[in-house]
Formats: sequence, C-alpha cells, structure tokens
Amino acid sequence: MARLVKHEKNAPYEIAEGAKLPLYICACGLSGNKPFCDGTHKKTRDEGAEVYVYDDNGRVRVTNAY
Amino acid sequence: MARLVKHEKNAPYEIAEGAKLPLYICACGLSGNKPFCDGTHKKTRDEGAEVYVYDDNGRVRVTNAY
Repeated sequence: MARLVKHEKNAPYEIAEGAKLPLYICACGLSGNKPFCDGTHKKTRDEGAEVYVYDDNGRVRVTNAY
Repeated sequence: MARLVKHEKNAPYEIAEGAKLPLYICACGLSGNKPFCDGTHKKTRDEGAEVYVYDDNGRVRVTNAY
C-alpha cells in the first residue's frame, strides 16, 4: 500500500490562528484540496503490495523498466 | 521544481481541538515529522526543472528509462 505523489511546493502550508479545529490533513498525498483531506484516500484502500501512481485515468503500477 | 514522494498512509492526520496555532504543514513532501514542517523543504530550493526523488543518499533525477 504505497504510491508516488508529485510535490511541487517548497514551503509549508500555514494553518493560521483562529482556524476551526479539529482539522484533517491529507496523508495519502492525493487530496485535491491540500493540505486538507477531501476523502480521496478511499481510492487507495484496495491497493496491492506494489507502488502506484495516480492520474486522471486511474492508477498505474510502478515497476522496474528492465 | 518537483519531486516524487512515496506515501504509505491511507487516512488523514488529525489536528485535534486544542492544538496551538499557527501550525505549519509539510507541502514539499519530505518532512521527517509529518504532517508538520521540519524545514526539510530547504533541500528542494535548488532543484532544476526536472523531477527528483530523495533518499538517504541525496537527490536523484527521474528520467525516462528508454
């Protein structure tokens, strides 16, 4: 159960004073509303033992090229 | 400026009621203290235009295998 996710940011998200808690922070890497969870992790629940990459077409398995 | 980060979790982190704000949430993907920023994003600031993977030995470039 693992996936490779592309990250493009190079500075953290701030959760500012006054934010309403509790908050749920994306851990699967796939949320469309980062840093917050949007429930997309449900897609990962049937992953096998390999490593995957997700795109608009779904999930692809990452394997050695040769 | 981008990198592929392996994610293994399939449920969000909770920032519970009573947490002290502001908080800084990892966005680069590389923090050793997720979901919180630990400053590791500084390593990414000299990335070029390619996509990278980081491991204990440093940074490797991801390119097409053929």
